[in-house]
Amino acid sequence: MNSLPVSFSKKAIRTPESPISQFMELALSSPHLISLAAGMVDGGSLPAGPIASAVSSILNDPKTARAALQYGTTQGYGPLIGHIVEHVAKLDGKTPKELGVSVKDVLVTTGSQQLLYMLSELLLDAGDIVITESPSYFVYHSVLAGNGTRVLTVPMDDDGMITDELDILLEKLDRAGELQRVKLIYTVDYFQNPTGLTLSLERRKHLVEIVEKYAKKQRILILEDAAYRELRYEGDELPSVKSFDPKNQHVIYAGTFSKPCAPGLKTGYALMPNELIEPMVRLKGNHDFGSNNLSQHIICKLLETGDYSRHVEYLRGVYRQKRDAMMQALDAEFGDWLGVYWTRPKGGMFVWLTLPAEIETSPGSKFVKAALKEGVLYIPGEFGHVSESGHVPKNEARLSFGDATPKQIHEGMQRLRKAADSVLKTEAMASGAA
Amino acid sequence: MNSLPVSFSKKAIRTPESPISQFMELALSSPHLISLAAGMVDGGSLPAGPIASAVSSILNDPKTARAALQYGTTQGYGPLIGHIVEHVAKLDGKTPKELGVSVKDVLVTTGSQQLLYMLSELLLDAGDIVITESPSYFVYHSVLAGNGTRVLTVPMDDDGMITDELDILLEKLDRAGELQRVKLIYTVDYFQNPTGLTLSLERRKHLVEIVEKYAKKQRILILEDAAYRELRYEGDELPSVKSFDPKNQHVIYAGTFSKPCAPGLKTGYALMPNELIEPMVRLKGNHDFGSNNLSQHIICKLLETGDYSRHVEYLRGVYRQKRDAMMQALDAEFGDWLGVYWTRPKGGMFVWLTLPAEIETSPGSKFVKAALKEGVLYIPGEFGHVSESGHVPKNEARLSFGDATPKQIHEGMQRLRKAADSVLKTEAMASGAA
Repeated sequence: MNSLPVSFSKKAIRTPESPISQFMELALSSPHLISLAAGMVDGGSLPAGPIASAVSSILNDPKTARAALQYGTTQGYGPLIGHIVEHVAKLDGKTPKELGVSVKDVLVTTGSQQLLYMLSELLLDAGDIVITESPSYFVYHSVLAGNGTRVLTVPMDDDGMITDELDILLEKLDRAGELQRVKLIYTVDYFQNPTGLTLSLERRKHLVEIVEKYAKKQRILILEDAAYRELRYEGDELPSVKSFDPKNQHVIYAGTFSKPCAPGLKTGYALMPNELIEPMVRLKGNHDFGSNNLSQHIICKLLETGDYSRHVEYLRGVYRQKRDAMMQALDAEFGDWLGVYWTRPKGGMFVWLTLPAEIETSPGSKFVKAALKEGVLYIPGEFGHVSESGHVPKNEARLSFGDATPKQIHEGMQRLRKAADSVLKTEAMASGAA
Repeated sequence: MNSLPVSFSKKAIRTPESPISQFMELALSSPHLISLAAGMVDGGSLPAGPIASAVSSILNDPKTARAALQYGTTQGYGPLIGHIVEHVAKLDGKTPKELGVSVKDVLVTTGSQQLLYMLSELLLDAGDIVITESPSYFVYHSVLAGNGTRVLTVPMDDDGMITDELDILLEKLDRAGELQRVKLIYTVDYFQNPTGLTLSLERRKHLVEIVEKYAKKQRILILEDAAYRELRYEGDELPSVKSFDPKNQHVIYAGTFSKPCAPGLKTGYALMPNELIEPMVRLKGNHDFGSNNLSQHIICKLLETGDYSRHVEYLRGVYRQKRDAMMQALDAEFGDWLGVYWTRPKGGMFVWLTLPAEIETSPGSKFVKAALKEGVLYIPGEFGHVSESGHVPKNEARLSFGDATPKQIHEGMQRLRKAADSVLKTEAMASGAA
């Protein structure tokens, strides 16, 4: 007897395959590959020593051991939340009060990814609208697709999301009577994933003004995904979008300890308008009634001892070198090639590469196959785009200098150039033969 | 200017407040209270030593440190998954092959709670039907409420869910043409939360026969929540419901390391029909792309060294004593009282107490207030019931011997008796005055 089919939900059917996890598994399982694809952090600088000390100090004291190994509360570990508020305020050069937030406005999550997921559940019914930058973070697009959300996009330039274009889009939606469906504007405003671009100071302010201007019967919220904020290698610290919302009404600020500390601790957090906390905690109670408690205690200890900020300082040096290596390698391998462009990020882990239109970077393309054959992996740029907004460029790629060493970055870029050359060569042969 | 309202999703509006997290917070913030309420584990026996050794061994080797602190894969840490398959098969006295499962059928989750949440997302559209035992696990009811799921229930006796009643219910649904909406049967089949009752051997077999009988166009799946399985204090190991599904088609087996090891590691897992894995991994990619990696490495190490099974053995002795203390205290305090009943669990952490009908146990009731005044906390039984299925008893309570010491259990039960007496006394005075 054949087995009967399983009947899946609409959400399951809508949820697309995640390109990221596929590429991460490829990278993990093929050590000979140089991965410029996945958003992994630098392996060599992971703070094993400080984390080992923190764990040993927590677990050697029966009282703290008991607290860290037992269930915690759904909102998060109280002392950690205290540190988070101080930490974010300090990044903005403000007191928590000046920033408009307190410990009552924080939720600890399983990485900032869980915050993105849960916030979408909290606000969005199928058919509701989220506006994102174009291109934007792949996995967030998957979340929205699973939710049945309508995604509209705003183009970017070197100063990040072009907020004047957002203004025009909202104006159009208003005229079309669709403003009520717009729930959220999403921006990765520091060293964006996938482009490496940063939202300028003026536009940060403008963004808050725009949502104030268009919100009529209900709020239009801003999700500020600041995952890469602390990985800054040059330039001054820019104030958060959140800092232009001193009454804590418009902006959800999402942060993480994965990028600046250790992804294996999978701990993120958000500061948000207080009315969102109680319903978020209800939702999180159903998800898992609180994120990993031991990891929360570890991070709290690292923040307390100063090990965390020392590590971030050290990390900036490590990544600065790798960013520089990638810039040099791109200059060396693609500098001679008119029609090839790339971003020059001041922080984060990503560079956005635009190839000539004839080199298609899509999954399954000749170029991706040639790159794999040469032994290098990138993320096809089209994953960063969504189709409703029209044209999806097919000649872009996200390159990461997160995990690869400077030597691997140089080698990887040579392989990428070889792959590009081989594609052009076969194209030329094919057109010659035709 | 007053601020505009936030517009929440249907799901957020449907998601109820979690009684459990509220009671947990009360217990955590009021150390003078004796909590017989929350499902916390015994604090004194948490395996701080073995976990500290595991962490130190992982983090002192640069290679394993790097693997544990970096991102992992969405499905879970490979070597841990290998141990999980062996572990569950061993509990059933079988090889993995005999049990019908392999490492390809496992997903690691953030506690088994996340599995319950994600499986509901995977299978259920609003209006779909899940059948649970009555009473059943409070937080799962919240998940289903958030989903807009229709919950139907089957009564229990000392042998757990009365499967003949399930048969009758499905027969009725079939006649009503509603069988297509039935997606899942949920059972906490070992030392149930909240009653402490266990599903008998015959009914385990019967349960699988029933879903095979009624599934016509699509499968009716069984979610076997085995969270308390390893906390067994008397009697023989019972085979899992999963073991009656050797082709791995009908049963999702959910396990956890929270109860038998440490909730602070927040690591659970599920063995499931293979067709579910790929869509579950897609969903989990959106949630968090994989649960806490360090915790997975820690548990893997504990399973490897044998520290895990030694700890479970030790834990059984600790909880057996506390279970016995609660049985003695109930006999001592309520043994003289006709009309008071309680279950006698052979494992787990919970006892189900039924008081005379005139003592209402609801939140806000005189009894709950009197108990708080005396300094003892329980979970009102009505949280375990859902209303569509008709009558909700108001005179039941869930008592936990998880966190309290034997001494606190005795003291707590004395306080509970005092509270009951004081309610009866004021009732009698009130009716005397009337």
